Amino acid sequence: MNVIESASNEKIKSAAKLSSSSKERKEKREFFLEGLRLCRDAAECGIAIKNFFYTENALEKHKSDVEFISSKAEQTFLISKSAALKMSDTQNPQGLFCVCPFLCEKGEEVVLSGGKFIALENVQDPSNLGAISRTAEALGITALIAENGCDIYNPKAQRAAMGSLLRLPVIRTENLSSLIEKCKENGFKAYATTPSENAKLITECDMSGSVIAVVGNEGNGVSEKIFASCESVTIPMKGRAESLNASVAAAITMWEIMRS
Amino acid sequence: MNVIESASNEKIKSAAKLSSSSKERKEKREFFLEGLRLCRDAAECGIAIKNFFYTENALEKHKSDVEFISSKAEQTFLISKSAALKMSDTQNPQGLFCVCPFLCEKGEEVVLSGGKFIALENVQDPSNLGAISRTAEALGITALIAENGCDIYNPKAQRAAMGSLLRLPVIRTENLSSLIEKCKENGFKAYATTPSENAKLITECDMSGSVIAVVGNEGNGVSEKIFASCESVTIPMKGRAESLNASVAAAITMWEIMRS
Repeated sequence: MNVIESASNEKIKSAAKLSSSSKERKEKREFFLEGLRLCRDAAECGIAIKNFFYTENALEKHKSDVEFISSKAEQTFLISKSAALKMSDTQNPQGLFCVCPFLCEKGEEVVLSGGKFIALENVQDPSNLGAISRTAEALGITALIAENGCDIYNPKAQRAAMGSLLRLPVIRTENLSSLIEKCKENGFKAYATTPSENAKLITECDMSGSVIAVVGNEGNGVSEKIFASCESVTIPMKGRAESLNASVAAAITMWEIMRS
Repeated sequence: MNVIESASNEKIKSAAKLSSSSKERKEKREFFLEGLRLCRDAAECGIAIKNFFYTENALEKHKSDVEFISSKAEQTFLISKSAALKMSDTQNPQGLFCVCPFLCEKGEEVVLSGGKFIALENVQDPSNLGAISRTAEALGITALIAENGCDIYNPKAQRAAMGSLLRLPVIRTENLSSLIEKCKENGFKAYATTPSENAKLITECDMSGSVIAVVGNEGNGVSEKIFASCESVTIPMKGRAESLNASVAAAITMWEIMRS
């Protein structure tokens, strides 16, 4: 166990930068987790933890958790309150932080072997990404597929995901449309969600066997390119609201996929 | 049209207090709305607007909206940027604000005449309340019923609701358990949601006719008192996540109620 007093220590500054900058995460191929829940989830699900930082206060309140997380971490640091504040998103940090290498990336072969998949095309809001991941895991979706949009290591996405983004397989693709075509060659049904009333009702879709369903960007929905490869499906709306929130539309879509 | 320059003007201070204090809202029986979307929604759906405040900047950017909202408001004020900042939740306010009297409250007789209802028992998080209201309106739920928990005039709830809390009927009850008993005497089916695996699967419930379904507090779920009056139902979870977010559990529940 090492001690860090100064908030301008290089390890602290580097961790804070991982938290705030997607570019930094991509360059270092590392990400940042804050809080008891996420740090413990990381230790429990066996992902690599490079640095674990905790405050005196966190040690007093969560002794067994601190010991457990320390036992899984490459390096452990007791840090000052000012160092914790430098890294934290909040004014009253719990005082537990991890830096982890990027998770092992799953390739497209995971998809092609079959299952039930939700694909996000350019979903931007980290809270939506996190919420969709949480629901996907709870309902038993095989894996999340993502093209563009928010990165899964965004701290707000990780917080909303309640640990699910550490456990649920995520496949990044540069070409969702081509992946969908390969899925269809492998017998998948491919659906793209839309608020349009002209689309097929989601309750009338065949969800048996392997399925991939695409949820689009919050503002623009699914792109024309993806619609060209998929059957358009809609959640019938009987009320006056303009649309469902992206995470709710995704939740109902995943529910229908897993329902039968 | 009147002009307010000072951020310490009484009307500005009073509006800011309505935004921050639930107690103040209850005493004055007034609430506060911020932003183009909500102020326009208020004007469009015909609720009373006591004061409408806008900045020079808002007038330039949204002239026709400002004129439309002004035409519906009892009093209209052109305000300074500092007055806007005093009232706003954000650092870059859009510069449109309304103060409205409490909405016309619906009584329990609205429920007893039948329909499809979602009841919230002590739901605390304003974002959950708002999100549930938005989904309820989109799916065509008859009305929202609420016992305790977050007040519907909370600015965060209003923002997440995207105007739906101004349109969807909301029935406040002091005694949800007694209301459910009356519903059952009127032929309703009454369900209470739980993560427990011993409960009936929601996919196997009869959702025909009049239905009331209860979603519980984020931490503690539905209370024993309510379970005593309802059939317990659960959303089957196949994954590892501990539970669904309250707004997602409510969304799937409402979807199942309206699905058939």
